[in-house]
Amino acid sequence: MNEFVLDPRLQADCHFLGEVDAGLLLLFNNALLPWFIVVPRTQVTELYQLDSDLQLRLWQEVNRLSKFIDSEFEVEKLNIAAIGNMVSQLHVHVVGRHSNDYCWPGVVWGTEDREDYRQEQVGSILSALENNYPGRFVANPA
Amino acid sequence: MNEFVLDPRLQADCHFLGEVDAGLLLLFNNALLPWFIVVPRTQVTELYQLDSDLQLRLWQEVNRLSKFIDSEFEVEKLNIAAIGNMVSQLHVHVVGRHSNDYCWPGVVWGTEDREDYRQEQVGSILSALENNYPGRFVANPA
Repeated sequence: MNEFVLDPRLQADCHFLGEVDAGLLLLFNNALLPWFIVVPRTQVTELYQLDSDLQLRLWQEVNRLSKFIDSEFEVEKLNIAAIGNMVSQLHVHVVGRHSNDYCWPGVVWGTEDREDYRQEQVGSILSALENNYPGRFVANPA
Repeated sequence: MNEFVLDPRLQADCHFLGEVDAGLLLLFNNALLPWFIVVPRTQVTELYQLDSDLQLRLWQEVNRLSKFIDSEFEVEKLNIAAIGNMVSQLHVHVVGRHSNDYCWPGVVWGTEDREDYRQEQVGSILSALENNYPGRFVANPA
């Protein structure tokens, strides 16, 4: 079995926030809206190919992250998706949306607008995660 | 508790295929690629708000549908998403993608290209579902 390595494109486009129960937690580097990505430690590329234990943990993670986004950011809707047309490594997007955001009501995928996070913004997201995920989140900023 | 009624926009844009364990199964009326939608019978609008039993049944349904699409259509990737920016009624898209399809590697949401299904195409999808979902799919074409 090959060792799990984060896809270079995800690595380039995201801040690595840390480890969660289901895998790695990333923050897509776009401060325009809260856009998180969960990457389960697996070699399979489709959700249905995950063993049932990891699949369950992944969805529990997405639930926790959804609640976190709902409580910490001003959002009206969550967009949750496993796409993988460009990066085949299995990853799930969890994006908080608001009717005032830059691409509402369209989807975020394929849009060009983007704004880099400032380091202190990433820091406050990390602190909020540590408060909201007691014992379930191990921060490991790049 | 309000009675569950399928959103009028989903009703207009899709063929109603039938009932599955987790809710209603729809076929988005775009013969350019296999695009199915599962609508759980619920009033909540976010996945994390589903009770754990219905959430589990929904993901099992998405697994079954994913395998079905993989076996019946020529697909290279599955795109799975709960978005709901335009139609708030909770629904999960399960879309089979191919590198030759009309919007690869982009996402299908927000694209304009579309081709109506012919009635016999819907009929063969219904037959394939009945063969692949023994006892789990109750066809109820419009």
